[in-house]
Amino acid sequence: MDFKAYLDEKRVMVEEALEGIFPGPEGPAADIISAMRYSLFAGGKRLRPILCMAGAEAVGGEAKDVLPVACAIELIHTYSLIHDDLPVMDDDDMRRGKPTSHKVFGEAVAVLAGDGLLTKAFHVMTGADFVNRVRPDALLAVIARIAQAAGYEGMVGGQVVDIQSEGKAVDPSIVEYIHTRKTAALISASVVSGAILVGAVEDQVKALASYGQNIGLAFQVSDDILDIEGDSRELGKNVGSDTRQEKVTYPAVHGLKRSKDIEKELVQQAIESLAPFDRRAEPLRQIAKYIIARKR
Amino acid sequence: MDFKAYLDEKRVMVEEALEGIFPGPEGPAADIISAMRYSLFAGGKRLRPILCMAGAEAVGGEAKDVLPVACAIELIHTYSLIHDDLPVMDDDDMRRGKPTSHKVFGEAVAVLAGDGLLTKAFHVMTGADFVNRVRPDALLAVIARIAQAAGYEGMVGGQVVDIQSEGKAVDPSIVEYIHTRKTAALISASVVSGAILVGAVEDQVKALASYGQNIGLAFQVSDDILDIEGDSRELGKNVGSDTRQEKVTYPAVHGLKRSKDIEKELVQQAIESLAPFDRRAEPLRQIAKYIIARKR
Repeated sequence: MDFKAYLDEKRVMVEEALEGIFPGPEGPAADIISAMRYSLFAGGKRLRPILCMAGAEAVGGEAKDVLPVACAIELIHTYSLIHDDLPVMDDDDMRRGKPTSHKVFGEAVAVLAGDGLLTKAFHVMTGADFVNRVRPDALLAVIARIAQAAGYEGMVGGQVVDIQSEGKAVDPSIVEYIHTRKTAALISASVVSGAILVGAVEDQVKALASYGQNIGLAFQVSDDILDIEGDSRELGKNVGSDTRQEKVTYPAVHGLKRSKDIEKELVQQAIESLAPFDRRAEPLRQIAKYIIARKR
Repeated sequence: MDFKAYLDEKRVMVEEALEGIFPGPEGPAADIISAMRYSLFAGGKRLRPILCMAGAEAVGGEAKDVLPVACAIELIHTYSLIHDDLPVMDDDDMRRGKPTSHKVFGEAVAVLAGDGLLTKAFHVMTGADFVNRVRPDALLAVIARIAQAAGYEGMVGGQVVDIQSEGKAVDPSIVEYIHTRKTAALISASVVSGAILVGAVEDQVKALASYGQNIGLAFQVSDDILDIEGDSRELGKNVGSDTRQEKVTYPAVHGLKRSKDIEKELVQQAIESLAPFDRRAEPLRQIAKYIIARKR
């Protein structure tokens, strides 16, 4: 398969669908719409929505049938970046080569833009047109999984332990705790949601959840490695910020060489989870390999 | 009817159900659980969940059948208070007689506690036990309404215009814009959600939405009046903060006397919206009258 063409095609689908979610910035609340759009169209890779669509395809469904959920997950991911970058959190000025939300719109609007994106995600998933096209019980199960992955048992819980662990000597189990929740939970929920919506059976859901956990963790380990070895221009953000902020990362806890081995093992395990699937899971296999090869 | 006994009975139902939502604060993310619980059990009146249950009763349903949605709305309301109180927003130190979340847990955990409560709301509404007891299409419609009322078209949009209007001379239409979105949208969604879940027909939904909009707006006008005339001990927060912060309020725009007239008119309109309902809507009528009489 032409993997690059696959990613491009899916990214265009996502961009077009995201474009239709918010109106133009008009009226008294124009600033909040501008701020949400600014971060949403800041050049993200759309990894999570693509995973959601690839998850649907792996079990025989069609990408377009899960597009609103794919977009909702990107809204949630974008909200988490805005809040993570806030001065009271990681205090990052640059993201994807552009000033972060609070640098452009101020902290109050940045907090509210995050709140607005998170809330809109659940509105997008329950739009009347979409609801009429899916099994309602499947959609409710998907909303539950995404909310759990994004909440205090997932992303929010990972972020709080992340910021509280800065500068501390922590047990290796804590770095896994943080990354599993902060990154892997929503990535895993992305793949699984797409599959559930088009009728995946329980064994398929379990295998895809395992795939998602492993690539999600691998993705964060590779992010940690890129923060040391990457090129700040290609990444669009300053490198070395983890070290400066004394972040709990895989390289900090396990060293760079061991971290690269862990990344490879996780990708290998992810691909093994896909053994029961046929060639329709090929995009998921390619995405797993891409994680190690990527430069940004 | 014994209105005080009604409120007490419903409040106990809500408190008990909220108690079961979060585990005890254990594990690496204990702080976020503590912070969410701290604000959730800070002595709120539980007005929104009670309205949700009263909405169900008004159309012949039972309060217990909508309890998870009632609780979810209280989680959303609590998140909005935590974020509104942040130093970058209204910078309030006291709420309901206790230090605000960021004063106790720091700003980073306060932002995340808000995020966690908002996200958990959607998890609570999609719990497997609850999903099996309701019509899934009704529940999806309710989630959509609540997300819209809480998001940039509702609460978040009202808050951004609120903070951006501080200290400015604004058109009276702006104060209505703010209050309609910041307060009335979620209050209206509370009543309507309870009714939809137990099978309300379209005319009933419209009448209850109108009731909710009117009491929601009246509630905010009465809040503005209490900030001038209220007792800070009874209110559990400092009075006069709207004036100090040069907030756009009904008294600031229309004067105190006219604001009291507007409040009465809104309550009257709310009660008129209930004309098609029988005595099962009596709690809703009493709640409308209580808004004018309340001291906190």
